[in-house]
Amino acid sequence: MSTNKLPSQSEDFPAWYVEVVKRAELAEHGPAKGSMIIKPHGYAIWEHTQRALDDRFKATGHENLYFPLLIPMSLLGKEADHVEGFAPQVAVVTHGGGQELEEPLAIRPSSESIIWSTYKRWIQSYRDLPLLYNQWCNVMRWEMRTRLFLRTSEFLWQEGHTAHATSDEAVEEALRMLEVYREVAEDVLAIPVIKGRKSAGERFPGAVETYCIEGLMRDTKALQCGTSHFLGQNFAKAYDVTFLNADGQQEHAWATSWGFSARMVGGTIMAHGDDAGLRLPPAVAPIQVVIVPISRSEEERASVIGVAERIRSELAAQGVRVRVDDREQHRPGYKFAEWELKGVPVRVELGPRDVAADRVVVAERTGGDKAEVPVAELIAGIRARLEGIQRALYAEALAYREANTHEITSYAAFASGVAEQGGFWRGAWCGDAACEAEIAQRTKATIRFLPIEPTDPGTTCMHCGKPGVDVAHWARAY
Amino acid sequence: MSTNKLPSQSEDFPAWYVEVVKRAELAEHGPAKGSMIIKPHGYAIWEHTQRALDDRFKATGHENLYFPLLIPMSLLGKEADHVEGFAPQVAVVTHGGGQELEEPLAIRPSSESIIWSTYKRWIQSYRDLPLLYNQWCNVMRWEMRTRLFLRTSEFLWQEGHTAHATSDEAVEEALRMLEVYREVAEDVLAIPVIKGRKSAGERFPGAVETYCIEGLMRDTKALQCGTSHFLGQNFAKAYDVTFLNADGQQEHAWATSWGFSARMVGGTIMAHGDDAGLRLPPAVAPIQVVIVPISRSEEERASVIGVAERIRSELAAQGVRVRVDDREQHRPGYKFAEWELKGVPVRVELGPRDVAADRVVVAERTGGDKAEVPVAELIAGIRARLEGIQRALYAEALAYREANTHEITSYAAFASGVAEQGGFWRGAWCGDAACEAEIAQRTKATIRFLPIEPTDPGTTCMHCGKPGVDVAHWARAY
Repeated sequence: MSTNKLPSQSEDFPAWYVEVVKRAELAEHGPAKGSMIIKPHGYAIWEHTQRALDDRFKATGHENLYFPLLIPMSLLGKEADHVEGFAPQVAVVTHGGGQELEEPLAIRPSSESIIWSTYKRWIQSYRDLPLLYNQWCNVMRWEMRTRLFLRTSEFLWQEGHTAHATSDEAVEEALRMLEVYREVAEDVLAIPVIKGRKSAGERFPGAVETYCIEGLMRDTKALQCGTSHFLGQNFAKAYDVTFLNADGQQEHAWATSWGFSARMVGGTIMAHGDDAGLRLPPAVAPIQVVIVPISRSEEERASVIGVAERIRSELAAQGVRVRVDDREQHRPGYKFAEWELKGVPVRVELGPRDVAADRVVVAERTGGDKAEVPVAELIAGIRARLEGIQRALYAEALAYREANTHEITSYAAFASGVAEQGGFWRGAWCGDAACEAEIAQRTKATIRFLPIEPTDPGTTCMHCGKPGVDVAHWARAY
Repeated sequence: MSTNKLPSQSEDFPAWYVEVVKRAELAEHGPAKGSMIIKPHGYAIWEHTQRALDDRFKATGHENLYFPLLIPMSLLGKEADHVEGFAPQVAVVTHGGGQELEEPLAIRPSSESIIWSTYKRWIQSYRDLPLLYNQWCNVMRWEMRTRLFLRTSEFLWQEGHTAHATSDEAVEEALRMLEVYREVAEDVLAIPVIKGRKSAGERFPGAVETYCIEGLMRDTKALQCGTSHFLGQNFAKAYDVTFLNADGQQEHAWATSWGFSARMVGGTIMAHGDDAGLRLPPAVAPIQVVIVPISRSEEERASVIGVAERIRSELAAQGVRVRVDDREQHRPGYKFAEWELKGVPVRVELGPRDVAADRVVVAERTGGDKAEVPVAELIAGIRARLEGIQRALYAEALAYREANTHEITSYAAFASGVAEQGGFWRGAWCGDAACEAEIAQRTKATIRFLPIEPTDPGTTCMHCGKPGVDVAHWARAY
């Protein structure tokens, strides 16, 4: 670990991010352009997030399956908007087994095309519906300007793909999964998010509606944290997926798809980190408690480590992810800084005098003074302590977002405000894509979301002065 | 579900396999040659296997991480044997983002090359060792003749990659993970396996030793169920990975890699299935208990389903994976056949008279007569019942393997025996690769494994008559 100070967030947030990702050993660039190596400390955050999502997918009746990585180009091309959206980003396999392929194969940028061409075989009657499926996989969207976790060519995610007999059921499913995403973002990653709907210009290629959850990072920029799409009958029509409904009529099926990706490891870093490094929500922290034994002699060392091991095993028995840092080559101060950098929620220090007094010194990564705590109290109270830290991170992020959400009083106030202060800016919009594009071009802010249901703002568009038809949240975003 | 009978195993095992995979809805071919769609019932078997492996990897000190899918061709080429082994099977990306790439990228056939080129940055001193890492991912090895689960171009697996300070430690690690594989194969998939060592000709490209676990399928053919490689310093030398040892000397690191793949879903099908379909070990069965309510009137139906639901919820509370099949469009006999085909270990039938008598009728997929069982007894005894089925499947497969393992008394007896009876054939081998190749060419059998430690057979090679140096197990294999 480098012992230089991190760049401060307020001075240079992008540099802070790059250094934290590197020094906390979360990820690094791979050899091919746009690729990323996810290191164990970063991958474990994703694993805990996966588990939280997967449990909820299953509880809401979904099953996992797996579709192939490679999609024949001709198949990808059947839904016009979809292919137009993804064509510029596709990676293409032209050779296999030493020979040129008859038809080039795309590495999936998303799997609607291969899945809906298959659903054609799986769906005959209304009795086959709904199909509630999900897959965990890697996808590839070519990127030249990459940022670890946030924007890489290959990324890890899950993509849910469901088929339904009615439009209402499909919309309900899309919103149900949006709620699952909100729950995981807020309750697991401790990132407060707002549920919304994208404007037409920001929709997923091929979607009728794209719903999203959107959060605010500590540099006042917005981050899209998950999207859930109502696809209407677009893919069913492109891939000719019909079913016999209960009235004996052939009908095209209704679709949703929804995705949550490992970019949220990046979101977790940026929503909570501070100038000392990561601050990880206990629910996803690879290590929740680190115990640092402190001793000056071999004799002290044996006794202190013995007690540290006993505490470790009692915490582990409660399902706490705990580690004793007994490395001899580093001094305690070095270890404290390293575990702060890596975002471990609770640090327990234990020296010979603590052992004698049957107590430990506890420091929480979220702040407050160090405290002397009886060993029994530490053990009995560890769950409550971790939950308290989880809540504190959420509350702090929520307060931050609220302090950085502004009502638009005039276009001029918005344009200067979004440039100087950042954050979310809420105001009336006319619904015109050209007006939206002009604002975006002038301010570098985009509509992050509209309300789930269109909402009359009761006033005129902040930019063009035409009647407002919806309330938009604008922000500069990742 | 088709109601035709399956082909029988004894008449046409390959046809039986194809039909079971299709009708039990485990998998199907994807649109690109060599690709596979894993359906929910097949994927869930893999998920349970993954969990069993992953828990054991973590318990033995390993952490997960993730390396990129695409590997620059020049990087792949640095370990000579490795690239020679994989070059004919590589799929190549030549275009990305609408442009031809400066350097073509291989889709990983295995990740030693990209991982060891990275370990160069992660390993400086003996204090950095060991590295005990694993990744769950997809890999690609171009195949023209595919068989679902057993041989497809893309497949899902885990690959462990560890680095050590000494040769002994690396060998110990390779054997430790082989033991983990044995445990999962036997205790989870109920497939008896033998641990062994591959002959030089069957080694992984770039390995010093390849250890394996090998099982026998119900058509008397062998299946390699997992491999663990001691890579010596081959990759450290190819990618220049050195470390400062405790004596202050620069040394190349020692390596292992080990892999277990979703082909074992195929192994589970072939090790246990019978003419009625799958027989799934409870440890990996997506549904462990199916409850089929039987009724003739609406009134009966409501009462029977009410009781079925109560039983379901009491079993689910014990962590049993249980489902009530209350589909109205199918008759009980159809449902019985479907769940037998899909391999559900325990079927519970429940009609109005059973409800009145507070009992159910229980049928186990592994056989025996149907039995009337009091509801309370079913619920209290479900764990023991499932464990009994798990043990019965293992015992049956073990007895089958023992009955199909033969001592070689002469080359002629072996050659005709392996052709007519199949199974494992054990006998003395001279250690000569040319002799091995000649036998393989004449009999279509290969050396499946040698003992972990070379073992003097005390007799001459069954084929060439030279002194025997090791005991080989031969078989025809997948």
